[in-house]
Amino acid sequence: MTDVKHMKWWGWGVEGVGFHWEDKPGFAPFVLKAVGLDLHNAEPAEPPVFEDLSLAGPVVAPALLTTLQGIVGEDDATIDPMERVVHTYGKSLRDLVRIRANAVERYVDVVVYPDDEQQVQAVVDAAVAADAVIIPFGGGSNIAGSLEPIKDETRTVISLDLGRLNKVISIDEKAGLARIQAGVLGPDMEEQLGRAGWTLGHFPDSFTHSTLGGWVATRSSGMQSDKYGDIADIARGLRVVRPSTDGAGTDGTLVIRGIPSASNGPSVREMILGSEGRLGVITEVTVQVHRTPEKRDVYAYFFPNWKAGIEAMQEIAESDAHPSITRVSDARESGFSLATSKERHGFDKFAADTVLPFLMRRKGWTNLEDICLSFIGFEGETSYAKRQKKLVDAIVKKHNGLGVGTGPGVLYDQKKFDTPYLRDFLLDRGAAGDVSESAMPWSQVIPLYDAVRAAADKAFDEIGIKGWIMAHMSHSYHSGACLYFTFAFVFGDDPITEYDTVKRAIQQAFVDNGGSISHHHGVGVEHSPWLEQDISTQGVAVMRGLFEATDPKGTFNPRKIVPDAAPIAAPVTRAARATAATKAPADTPSATRTRATARS
Amino acid sequence: MTDVKHMKWWGWGVEGVGFHWEDKPGFAPFVLKAVGLDLHNAEPAEPPVFEDLSLAGPVVAPALLTTLQGIVGEDDATIDPMERVVHTYGKSLRDLVRIRANAVERYVDVVVYPDDEQQVQAVVDAAVAADAVIIPFGGGSNIAGSLEPIKDETRTVISLDLGRLNKVISIDEKAGLARIQAGVLGPDMEEQLGRAGWTLGHFPDSFTHSTLGGWVATRSSGMQSDKYGDIADIARGLRVVRPSTDGAGTDGTLVIRGIPSASNGPSVREMILGSEGRLGVITEVTVQVHRTPEKRDVYAYFFPNWKAGIEAMQEIAESDAHPSITRVSDARESGFSLATSKERHGFDKFAADTVLPFLMRRKGWTNLEDICLSFIGFEGETSYAKRQKKLVDAIVKKHNGLGVGTGPGVLYDQKKFDTPYLRDFLLDRGAAGDVSESAMPWSQVIPLYDAVRAAADKAFDEIGIKGWIMAHMSHSYHSGACLYFTFAFVFGDDPITEYDTVKRAIQQAFVDNGGSISHHHGVGVEHSPWLEQDISTQGVAVMRGLFEATDPKGTFNPRKIVPDAAPIAAPVTRAARATAATKAPADTPSATRTRATARS
Repeated sequence: MTDVKHMKWWGWGVEGVGFHWEDKPGFAPFVLKAVGLDLHNAEPAEPPVFEDLSLAGPVVAPALLTTLQGIVGEDDATIDPMERVVHTYGKSLRDLVRIRANAVERYVDVVVYPDDEQQVQAVVDAAVAADAVIIPFGGGSNIAGSLEPIKDETRTVISLDLGRLNKVISIDEKAGLARIQAGVLGPDMEEQLGRAGWTLGHFPDSFTHSTLGGWVATRSSGMQSDKYGDIADIARGLRVVRPSTDGAGTDGTLVIRGIPSASNGPSVREMILGSEGRLGVITEVTVQVHRTPEKRDVYAYFFPNWKAGIEAMQEIAESDAHPSITRVSDARESGFSLATSKERHGFDKFAADTVLPFLMRRKGWTNLEDICLSFIGFEGETSYAKRQKKLVDAIVKKHNGLGVGTGPGVLYDQKKFDTPYLRDFLLDRGAAGDVSESAMPWSQVIPLYDAVRAAADKAFDEIGIKGWIMAHMSHSYHSGACLYFTFAFVFGDDPITEYDTVKRAIQQAFVDNGGSISHHHGVGVEHSPWLEQDISTQGVAVMRGLFEATDPKGTFNPRKIVPDAAPIAAPVTRAARATAATKAPADTPSATRTRATARS
Repeated sequence: MTDVKHMKWWGWGVEGVGFHWEDKPGFAPFVLKAVGLDLHNAEPAEPPVFEDLSLAGPVVAPALLTTLQGIVGEDDATIDPMERVVHTYGKSLRDLVRIRANAVERYVDVVVYPDDEQQVQAVVDAAVAADAVIIPFGGGSNIAGSLEPIKDETRTVISLDLGRLNKVISIDEKAGLARIQAGVLGPDMEEQLGRAGWTLGHFPDSFTHSTLGGWVATRSSGMQSDKYGDIADIARGLRVVRPSTDGAGTDGTLVIRGIPSASNGPSVREMILGSEGRLGVITEVTVQVHRTPEKRDVYAYFFPNWKAGIEAMQEIAESDAHPSITRVSDARESGFSLATSKERHGFDKFAADTVLPFLMRRKGWTNLEDICLSFIGFEGETSYAKRQKKLVDAIVKKHNGLGVGTGPGVLYDQKKFDTPYLRDFLLDRGAAGDVSESAMPWSQVIPLYDAVRAAADKAFDEIGIKGWIMAHMSHSYHSGACLYFTFAFVFGDDPITEYDTVKRAIQQAFVDNGGSISHHHGVGVEHSPWLEQDISTQGVAVMRGLFEATDPKGTFNPRKIVPDAAPIAAPVTRAARATAATKAPADTPSATRTRATARS
C-alpha cells in the first residue's frame, strides 16, 4: 500500500511542511491582539508520539481478513496500526485535538486497497456477508466527522481506501466529458487532464489532499465554482458499487450515465452526491471538463467597508458579467491577510505603505480599519476576460471600491492551499483555529453575518476566553452567497467542550438566520444535529427512509448525516455543558497508554 | 370549483381554439407528402360526446366524501362526472386516443379543491386514514401518463386539484427569490410577477396550461432555459405536504428553504423534483426570479445542413457567449416550419421567395432541401445583448450559417404555445402526431439522431404505414444537448398498438445511444419501462426504496415512475405485438356506452 500517499497521522499535509510566521512581521502582533497568544513566548508542543496511542486490537474475524486478503492481496488488506490510525478520522479540529490527546475511542479495524471496481465489488459483498461496516476513504481531508466509526460500533469496520483508483480513464473530447476514477487526488487528476489540454476547474482549499470521489460524496465547491459550478454541477455521471444481489457480483454497480440534464424522476445522481458513503462506494465519476482557458487572472480590490463589498458582489452576480471568482473578506479577515503577508521591500513596500493609503484617503475612506479586501477572477479568451473585467470594474466603482491590480491575486493563488497548515500551528501552541460555512439568500448575508459574530462573541464570553472570528464571502449565486467563517481562541482546560460551545453557537446562528448547515463541507456527525432545522423533520424522515431502505443492514458508513433520534442539539448552556463535559471524549481517561498493537 | 379553469376534456386548450391550415398555403401539400393525408378531402371528426362515455360510478365511501367536503366545503369535494373525467388523465397521445374511443378504464373518484396548505394537509391525512390514493393535479398538461390511476386500483382515488393555490405570496427583492403557490398557471404567475417588474423566465410549450408545481414535479424545461436554467435550477425552496404524524396535522410539511447551494447530504430538494406526486403534494415553491430584461430578441439563422447547425450550437455552448435560446431544426422540421407559415405579401414575399434563395445560392448551398432553420435568443442590457450576438454571429459564420434577422423570431415567439393544438387537428383526421425528447452528450447528438430516424422508419415499415419524423435541438449545455422529436402517421385499424410500436422504437433508440428517457416531460407510465436502462437496475432499486420507505401505504400516485417488477419492455416485435394487441385498451369493447353517471 506504499504507493498510496496519506497526510501525516496527526495533522494536515505532509511531514516537514508547516506554517511559518518568522518572515511575516505583522503576524505575531496580530495573533497577540486577536486571541492573546504571544507567539514569541509560546513554546510549540512536540508532535505527538505514535507509540503513545492506546489503540485496541482490531475487531476482525480471521476468516474475514483472509477473505479480504484473498480479494486485494495479502499486503493490501491490513491491520497495521499506523494504517488503522490514518484511516480512522479526517482533519477536523475535533479530530486533531482528540488524536493529540489520545482520545479517539474507536479505530477502524481493517484497511483495504482495492485495485479496481471489481475488487471494490468483492470487498462490498464480503462485508455484507460478514455483517461488517464499510467506510470509503479518499484523501482523508474531511472536517465534518464523516470518516470515523461510531464509537459503540461492535462490528468489523473496514476502511476502503480508493487511492489506487486514480486514473483518468478517457476523455470524450467532443462532449467535454471525462471518465475519472474516484480515488484520484486533485493534483494528480489535473496533471492527467492537463496533459491533454483540459481542466476540471475544481479547486477546493483541500485540493492537494482530497479526491474526486470525496468531493462528490460531500458536495464540494471550489475556488472557481462561480464559473465551473459546484461539484454537483460538474459530476454528470457516476458509478457506485452497492451489494450485488445475483451472488456473482455482476449486478451491484449503480450507473448514472453522463447526461447533461434529464427528467427521469427523483434524481438518483443527486442522492449519491453528498451521500458520504451511505449509499455505496463511488468508484468513478463522469465529469464536465474544460479547455484550459487562454487567460486567467485574479484581481484584487478594496472596498471602504463590508456592506459595500457585499453589495458590489451581489450586483456582479446579478449583472451580465461572469467572473470565475468573486470573493470579499470582512475587515477583520482583510487585516489578517495583510498580517500574513511577507515583509515587503523596495517599490512593493512604497506602494503598500505610501501609495495605497494615499489613494484610500483620496477616496474619502476615513476609517481604514473598515477596509475590505476582495478578489475577483476572470477566465476565458483574452478579449472576453477583458470585457468581463470592464463590466466588473464599473460595478466596483459604483460601490466606491478601488482596484489594485493582479499583484495580491497572485499571492492569493499561491497561498490558497496552505491555510489548513495554520490549524496545526495553532494547536501546537494550545490554540484552536477552525472554519464553518453556510449559504443563504442575499437578503440574509448581512443579518446572518451579524448574528454569527454576536453568537460567537457570546460563546467566547461564556467560556471566558478571548476569541476571534472573521469571514469572507467565498461563492456567489443569483439568489445568494456563501459566507465562510474562521474562528480561533486559546484553549482553557477543556478543549473539546470549549470548541463545542463556539461551534454550536455558530451553527445555530446559521440555521436561525436562513442559512444552510454547510455550503461545501458536508454533514458527517459534526453538522447532523442541525439537519432537522435545515431541511425540516419531514425532510430528515425522507432522507432516513432512503438510507434505511437502501442499506437495511447498516453496512455503509452507518449513522452519518442523519442524526440519531435524540433531541436536536441546542447551543450548549452552562448547565448542559457541565453535564456534557463528563461525557466529552477529551475527559475520557486514557488509563494505560500502551504501545499501539494489533491482535494478529 | 368554477373559479379553476381547465382545458377541454377531450383535447388541448380551450373550446373554440384550434389549429387552422386554410391560411397556410404550404401546409396541405406538406402533410400529403409527409404522411399521405389529403386535408382537402379529409372530413374532420366531430368532437366526442361526453354523454357517450362509459363512466362507472365513483368508488368512495360516503363517510370519506363527507370528511373531504367537511375540509374543503361541499361543492369543492365533488364526484361530478365532468370533473372526474377532466382530472383522470393528461394530454398524451395515448390519453387523447383513448378518451375519444371511450377506452379509459379507471377514472378518478373524487376531485377536491383545497383553498390553502392547511386544507391540503387535512385532505392528505384523511386519505391516509381511509387508505385512499391521492394524485395531485396541476394544469393537466402531462403527456407521460403521470395523472391516470392505475387501472386495477380498487381504493378510492382522489384527484387533488391545486388550482386555487395560485398566488405569488411574496418577492424577496433583495435576493431575487419569490415564494409562489404551486397551483398557479404560467400566464397568471408571470402576470403577478410582471406587475412588480420580475419574471421567472420559464416558458415550456405547455406554459399556458401548466402550473409551477407541475413543472417541479416533472423537471420541466422552458424555452429560455439556456439562460434561466431548467426548473431544477430555478426552484430553490419547496413546501411539500406529507402525512402528519402528530395527529394534529401540524408536522406534515416538508420544508426546503430557498438557499442557493448547500452541502447537507443527499438532496431532498432533488428528490422532490421529478417526483410526480409520489413523495407528497407540492404546495409552494421558492423560485429564482429575474428583473425583466432590457432587451430580448430572437434571431433566425439558416445553416446549410443539420451537421453544420449542431456543430455551431455546440461551439456556442462552449464559447464565452451566453444566449438565452439556442435552437436548430433538422431539414425536415425546417421545411415544416416554412410550410406552417402564413401566406406572405409584399416585401415579405419578395424577401422570402427571391432574396433569401439568392443569398443561399451565393453561399454555395446547392441542396436547398438540406437547409436548417435556427433560432438564437439574446437577453439583458442592450449593449450586452449586442455583444453576445456578435460572438454568436462569428461562430455562425464559421459554420457557413446565414443570419436572417428577427422577423422569423417574432413568428417563433407567437407560434410557440400553439403547437399542441396540432395534435387534436390530426386526431380529428385519423392521424397521430406526438413528441419524444432526450438529452445526450454532444458526441452522441448526431449518432442518436440517426438511430432514432432509422428506428422510427423501421417501426413505420413494420406497421405498414407512411410515417414522418423530424427533430430540433431545443436546449444546449456544456456537455450535451436535448433533441426534441416530432412524429406523425395516419392510423390503421389499431391506433394504440401502432402508436406503441413507434414510440417504443424511439425510446429504445434513446437509451441505446447514450440518451436519457426524457429531457423534460417526466416518466409517468409512458417512459417507466426504460428507466432501468437509463439509470441502471441499482438506480431503480434506490428510487424504489425511497418511494417504499416514504410512502409505505402507496397513498401518493402509486406505481408511477418506477416500473413494475415485470421485465423491461423491448421494442415490440410482430409476435409480441400480436399478443399485446389483445390487451390494448383501444381493443377493449366498451360494451354499453351509457350516459356518464355517478353513484350518489
